[in-house]
Amino acid sequence: MTNTQLTHVQIDNYGPWTVTPEPRREVDLQTLQSRLYADLSQLFGNRGGYVFFTRFDNMIAVSNGLTIEDHAMIQESVGNRYPVTMSLSVATGTTPAAALETATEQLQEAGSAQDKSRREVLEGRHIDTEFRTDEDVQIAHFDVVDATGKYTDKLSEFDTFIQIEQGYAALMKYMREAHEGLSFFVGGDNVIAVCPDMDAADYQDVVEHVHDDVGVELQVGVGRGSLAEEAGMAAKHALESSRANGTDVEVDF
Amino acid sequence: MTNTQLTHVQIDNYGPWTVTPEPRREVDLQTLQSRLYADLSQLFGNRGGYVFFTRFDNMIAVSNGLTIEDHAMIQESVGNRYPVTMSLSVATGTTPAAALETATEQLQEAGSAQDKSRREVLEGRHIDTEFRTDEDVQIAHFDVVDATGKYTDKLSEFDTFIQIEQGYAALMKYMREAHEGLSFFVGGDNVIAVCPDMDAADYQDVVEHVHDDVGVELQVGVGRGSLAEEAGMAAKHALESSRANGTDVEVDF
Amino acid sequence: MTNTQLTHVQIDNYGPWTVTPEPRREVDLQTLQSRLYADLSQLFGNRGGYVFFTRFDNMIAVSNGLTIEDHAMIQESVGNRYPVTMSLSVATGTTPAAALETATEQLQEAGSAQDKSRREVLEGRHIDTEFRTDEDVQIAHFDVVDATGKYTDKLSEFDTFIQIEQGYAALMKYMREAHEGLSFFVGGDNVIAVCPDMDAADYQDVVEHVHDDVGVELQVGVGRGSLAEEAGMAAKHALESSRANGTDVEVDF
Amino acid sequence: MTNTQLTHVQIDNYGPWTVTPEPRREVDLQTLQSRLYADLSQLFGNRGGYVFFTRFDNMIAVSNGLTIEDHAMIQESVGNRYPVTMSLSVATGTTPAAALETATEQLQEAGSAQDKSRREVLEGRHIDTEFRTDEDVQIAHFDVVDATGKYTDKLSEFDTFIQIEQGYAALMKYMREAHEGLSFFVGGDNVIAVCPDMDAADYQDVVEHVHDDVGVELQVGVGRGSLAEEAGMAAKHALESSRANGTDVEVDF
Ligand SMILES: Nc1nc2c(ncn2[C@@H]2O[C@H](COP(=O)(O)OP(=O)(O)OP(=O)(O)O)[C@@H](O)[C@H]2O)c(=O)[nH]1
Ligand SMILES: Nc1nc2c(ncn2[C@@H]2O[C@H](COP(=O)(O)OP(=O)(O)OP(=O)(O)O)[C@@H](O)[C@H]2O)c(=O)[nH]1
Ligand SMILES: Nc1nc2c(ncn2[C@@H]2O[C@H](COP(=O)(O)OP(=O)(O)OP(=O)(O)O)[C@@H](O)[C@H]2O)c(=O)[nH]1
Ligand SMILES: Nc1nc2c(ncn2[C@@H]2O[C@H](COP(=O)(O)OP(=O)(O)OP(=O)(O)O)[C@@H](O)[C@H]2O)c(=O)[nH]1
Ligand SMILES: [Ca+2]
Ligand SMILES: [Ca+2]
Ligand SMILES: [Ca+2]
Ligand SMILES: [Ca+2]
Repeated sequence: MTNTQLTHVQIDNYGPWTVTPEPRREVDLQTLQSRLYADLSQLFGNRGGYVFFTRFDNMIAVSNGLTIEDHAMIQESVGNRYPVTMSLSVATGTTPAAALETATEQLQEAGSAQDKSRREVLEGRHIDTEFRTDEDVQIAHFDVVDATGKYTDKLSEFDTFIQIEQGYAALMKYMREAHEGLSFFVGGDNVIAVCPDMDAADYQDVVEHVHDDVGVELQVGVGRGSLAEEAGMAAKHALESSRANGTDVEVDF
Repeated sequence: MTNTQLTHVQIDNYGPWTVTPEPRREVDLQTLQSRLYADLSQLFGNRGGYVFFTRFDNMIAVSNGLTIEDHAMIQESVGNRYPVTMSLSVATGTTPAAALETATEQLQEAGSAQDKSRREVLEGRHIDTEFRTDEDVQIAHFDVVDATGKYTDKLSEFDTFIQIEQGYAALMKYMREAHEGLSFFVGGDNVIAVCPDMDAADYQDVVEHVHDDVGVELQVGVGRGSLAEEAGMAAKHALESSRANGTDVEVDF
Repeated sequence: MTNTQLTHVQIDNYGPWTVTPEPRREVDLQTLQSRLYADLSQLFGNRGGYVFFTRFDNMIAVSNGLTIEDHAMIQESVGNRYPVTMSLSVATGTTPAAALETATEQLQEAGSAQDKSRREVLEGRHIDTEFRTDEDVQIAHFDVVDATGKYTDKLSEFDTFIQIEQGYAALMKYMREAHEGLSFFVGGDNVIAVCPDMDAADYQDVVEHVHDDVGVELQVGVGRGSLAEEAGMAAKHALESSRANGTDVEVDF
Repeated sequence: MTNTQLTHVQIDNYGPWTVTPEPRREVDLQTLQSRLYADLSQLFGNRGGYVFFTRFDNMIAVSNGLTIEDHAMIQESVGNRYPVTMSLSVATGTTPAAALETATEQLQEAGSAQDKSRREVLEGRHIDTEFRTDEDVQIAHFDVVDATGKYTDKLSEFDTFIQIEQGYAALMKYMREAHEGLSFFVGGDNVIAVCPDMDAADYQDVVEHVHDDVGVELQVGVGRGSLAEEAGMAAKHALESSRANGTDVEVDF
């Protein structure tokens, strides 16, 4: 059984800020957003967590191993260094989708994303040490087979991008609907998914579904651990095996 | 007539680097990628250009106003500060899609994205000053109507994200196929599109197409200028008018 | 008794790199150096440590609470994101000066700062948990009395800087020679010192010495803790008391 | 004749901010300061300017080639991305010291560094294009001879630092008093000085003065240009000649 701890990160009242007193320069917003994401990657990452950029104003983190105090510190550090603040909500659940649902609900109960007076909310609880196990997090690292040869070196970059996006869209929807897993594009031709307890046959089915749906050929490595980092690194090594063996799916447990 | 100058940015031989000698920590790759994007946003942006993160290992910039010498300096600055290098290819064309096609082709002719010996290629030419006009760049800033009320404050963050992604997928494909425009998700519920010469009726048609296709309601502001920044800022102001007037499309020219 | 754990951070073979194949643009070197420092501040800081920029190519960290494994991770993370690598050497001692002496010696034994083949050395040992106490780190936060009124708002900025630098130079030498403490300028009119076991009278003597020597009037708050962060934050609060009470020295233990 | 254009950069009301509502975590302040400096290095640097960190809350830039509009854009970009704002004051003068004096005075007249209501002041004027020449900026790049062999590989890092600091203190004072030049430590064993019209004999005298005063042996390369970057790069190449020829002073004009 997995026991994923997820954190919903939301910049407070960001929409209005972007146009007050007048629309701000887009390049500065892009710089702000991507640096905030980079900082959160390090802040969560140096405690074994993973963050995904999702929509940049709302991000999703796998935070197993991080306590509420760790979250408070991350919140304070961002508040000290950025012109915006952020709210954090932490939850667990029987599947990643269920955990996130709870996390988002806790935030919504505290106020709207565009509520002027809701600032630096910190909701939820972490998993107590005694309940943590080595199988709490299951991560799958999906990758397009020979993206360079089939797309990058052949099509215009935008047309390559359309192919990758289509693969991602099909994958994210199927993982969400069929398995309650959450899949995130992480650049290049790579998607990292936070999964419930799935086995090799489940992944084989996912890979086939995406191929049938949009014609994009995936390979995937899957790992498990008490932290996102452990599970994610095991998944990367499994993906290397998949590359070496020419298989679609390699599961490291 | 628009005359968009596009730059295809490609990290050299990045795939192999990410797994040599062993898979690198994902949080470091995420930090590297998003910081490189932030830096390029500033480097292009401080000369009036726009960069879009696209796949992070391949990015697309609107570079009107930047010379080849500016590109060389940006390339050198990145080479001085990152463990990876990047190649750049610049082109123009009758539509954004055509310009990018040329840019990518120039890069592909210089070698594969995963060619060990192809490093810091700089291809193409900028538009000579005498040929530049105030209508070279047309930018549309698309935004979801009441994303906060309809999605962010109601659904789980991942389900909100699926809605936004679907809207984006429909928009990007239609803009590409029907108009040869290139559309990029820039966070939140926002998409910025680099467009050929399109008028208000064209945009109205796009907004309706997306609504019919996936049920996502968009509003859009459109601007024009000699630089991405001017066109983009005019688009933002037009979008504010669209918000104020409750219209679907506002065109600032 | 204090038991300061210090880490000597040294960029590997940096001098030659700055001029190979030709001198690199100074603004890029400055950007690289200050960002590396910012990253180390976060990487050490998020585990309760402090880093000082010192010469930027060589930095000094108070690393109580960080294990050798933490150091290895920091080293790897920097290696993944910068064009240069760094060596780290960890040591303790009866005074901060003695600890650093050992740390530097370990590094020197491993090879020259400009040795082409010495890369990513990691030397020394951290303090075992059982030997750590709440008095391991003593930190003094020195600040110039009314720097704004006396200098910043009166003199040219360079002449203000000369005054602050002179105060710092006198302080750093006296602390080093009379007490084996290490003092670092941290911006503005502030100096943070890593100290051996010193009492209020010792600090009173230091403040008077600097005043007699170069005419700069200091106030200081002193704190203690098992981590640099705790000791440093206690010192900041003590400095606020010193401001409130108009005293020269406030010691929080 | 040189015609240096200097910009005094001052964070608005920074002291009070650092302790409101309570003292902020030092590692976050350090991160904020060094990243702001890195950003300014790029923002000024990508237009040919140089910035020096000086006290971090007050910085000094050589801004020849940057207009007041460029300054306004830099100010806005920082305001968009940091929790603090900054004021800028631009001036020229017959010597660097005189230029800075005017710049600082303009700022002081606009209000105190700790005035709550003085925010984002932008004072002064840039040099009109018609008055700019190829000799406006003279930069000297000083470096300690064999710092690695004499200090870094021999002494404890703090004792090396004391040597370098002493050399810098002697140099900065003498350059300021004897020549009205402004000298800035830039890391390692390097000092970059913004100079009035000085010749090889003047520099020889400076090198000898520092050697006599504190025993630190310097070599220096000097360059000239219409922008800091050109002058600074010429100085670096001259310093390489000085290294190659074993001379104390090399002047590139
Ligand atoms: N985020 C992330 N991206 C990666 C990683 N490995 C590769 N990539 C990205 O994937 C892109 C393509 O690289 P590869 O997947 O190695 O290349 P390929 O041509 O598809 O070849 P195969 O996958 O071996 O069939 C790279 O440019 C990276 O952007 C990784 O571990 N993390
Ligand atoms: N990149 C970018 N993102 C923006 C901009 N303005 C808003 N956003 C994003 O859009 C999100 C939603 O904000 P809004 O679009 O203002 O909110 P809304 O609820 O959809 O309301 P309306 O658009 O006014 O109907 C914000 O959190 C930002 O992430 C912008 O100018 N640039
Ligand atoms: N690194 C660091 N710098 C600080 C801190 N507090 C203040 N400073 C710096 O010190 C500068 C001067 O601020 P203050 O010391 O508050 O001002 P002052 O005029 O000297 O007034 P008093 O110290 O209250 O007499 C600020 O601009 C900051 O650069 C701090 O906690 N850490
Ligand atoms: N900011 C800056 N620092 C530099 C530059 N070149 C060298 N350094 C610094 O100077 C330090 C010492 O390097 P060198 O000066 O090459 O070494 P050295 O042992 O003194 O040898 P020589 O100068 O050749 O006698 C390096 O670690 C860098 O920190 C430069 O161009 N800019
Ligand atoms: Ca692949
Ligand atoms: Ca919206
Ligand atoms: Ca003070
Ligand atoms: Ca030297």
